[in-house]
Amino acid sequence: MKKVVVVIKPEKLTDVKHILEAHKVSGLMISNIMGYGNQKGFTQKYRGNELNSNLLPKIKVESVMPEEVVEKVTKDIVNTVRTGEFGDGKIFISPVEEAIRIRTGETGKDAL
Amino acid sequence: MKKVVVVIKPEKLTDVKHILEAHKVSGLMISNIMGYGNQKGFTQKYRGNELNSNLLPKIKVESVMPEEVVEKVTKDIVNTVRTGEFGDGKIFISPVEEAIRIRTGETGKDAL
Amino acid sequence: MKKVVVVIKPEKLTDVKHILEAHKVSGLMISNIMGYGNQKGFTQKYRGNELNSNLLPKIKVESVMPEEVVEKVTKDIVNTVRTGEFGDGKIFISPVEEAIRIRTGETGKDAL
Ligand SMILES: Nc1ncnc2c1ncn2[C@@H]1O[C@H](COP(=O)(O)OP(=O)(O)OP(=O)(O)O)[C@@H](O)[C@H]1O
Ligand SMILES: Nc1ncnc2c1ncn2[C@@H]1O[C@H](COP(=O)(O)OP(=O)(O)OP(=O)(O)O)[C@@H](O)[C@H]1O
Ligand SMILES: Nc1ncnc2c1ncn2[C@@H]1O[C@H](COP(=O)(O)OP(=O)(O)OP(=O)(O)O)[C@@H](O)[C@H]1O
Ligand SMILES: [Mg+2]
Ligand SMILES: [Mg+2]
Ligand SMILES: [Mg+2]
Repeated sequence: MKKVVVVIKPEKLTDVKHILEAHKVSGLMISNIMGYGNQKGFTQKYRGNELNSNLLPKIKVESVMPEEVVEKVTKDIVNTVRTGEFGDGKIFISPVEEAIRIRTGETGKDAL
Repeated sequence: MKKVVVVIKPEKLTDVKHILEAHKVSGLMISNIMGYGNQKGFTQKYRGNELNSNLLPKIKVESVMPEEVVEKVTKDIVNTVRTGEFGDGKIFISPVEEAIRIRTGETGKDAL
Repeated sequence: MKKVVVVIKPEKLTDVKHILEAHKVSGLMISNIMGYGNQKGFTQKYRGNELNSNLLPKIKVESVMPEEVVEKVTKDIVNTVRTGEFGDGKIFISPVEEAIRIRTGETGKDAL
């Protein structure tokens, strides 16, 4: 099992949800975060003063899925979410050793 | 060391905290997230229009703990949090390679 | 690649950002969380009643970086953020298997 973390602009959330559903990926967690990538966001000025804000609002989508679907899912996300502009987002993949569905006690892929 | 992520209904947070304390697990991070599992939440209608919301509010509890306690902790959480209804929640376990307590510089299990 | 998670008091965020920039670490995600460590926060009383709040507001900074810089970055964070008081914060390090920049499709370290 892998955790796929997708960090995107808020307006791309619906696209990502549809891709996960199309691949029968069954669950996700969504958080509002602030962040920057290589451009360090942009620096805002307010009445001549630099604001302490190069942080941009982003959506973090975390979904634990079987290893077999990761490549297809991430390819679809890249192709759909990409605009070609800076800030299109990032995907990170990391290992998950166990999953448990609390209602049934199922574990592993059966719990996804 | 392992990171145990528990995603539950908000009203179950106190139960999870008590279980962690009972097993002398010393720390946690709590986030408000939105999510769905296999039921894809439910679709709400507002004045006849489908709302872009099959997302339900959930609490994510993340706790890094020694490997030895993971099984006992997760069993207790499953047994205590389970109601038998859809949406009881999920547990995910993943590897953590290092922990550092900033105050002392301690590392590994000593830092937990 | 490693994910470095730094949990700190909100007023230390600027320090952590500066250290990441000094080491040319190119991106981060910031979340507002609630948490406690070994002291289980403190227990507040309000009009004689214990409040269900031993949770303190913290900032979680997550940054995915090349393995080579992790030690230097975490040492600098420990040295800069440490006050010697309880609650200075924690650092957790975990494996990341893949990163993808959505704009370009770059993967691995090139995507960071
Ligand atoms: N190395 C990183 N670690 C953690 N989060 C990151 C990292 N890089 C980017 N992010 C998160 O992803 C969001 C989107 O990043 P972004 O798309 O700007 O990446 P980028 O590398 O700057 O690519 P681009 O050059 O296309 O803008 C950031 O706001 C940040 O929250
Ligand atoms: N595969 C997953 N990846 C990431 N988060 C998930 C996943 N599955 C569930 N979650 C998170 O856990 C929360 C609770 O899930 P839930 O208990 O409904 O799981 P489920 O698999 O649908 O089980 P049940 O059939 O008992 O409802 C979701 O709202 C979501 O935030
Ligand atoms: N084992 C843990 N798992 C997950 N999060 C933790 C853990 N320990 C601490 N944290 C997070 O880090 C924050 C800061 O922890 P804190 O600095 O109080 O750690 P501590 O171990 O109690 O060290 P100290 O004795 O110096 O206070 C907590 O509020 C919590 O959100
Ligand atoms: Mg960028
Ligand atoms: Mg469900
Ligand atoms: Mg403490």
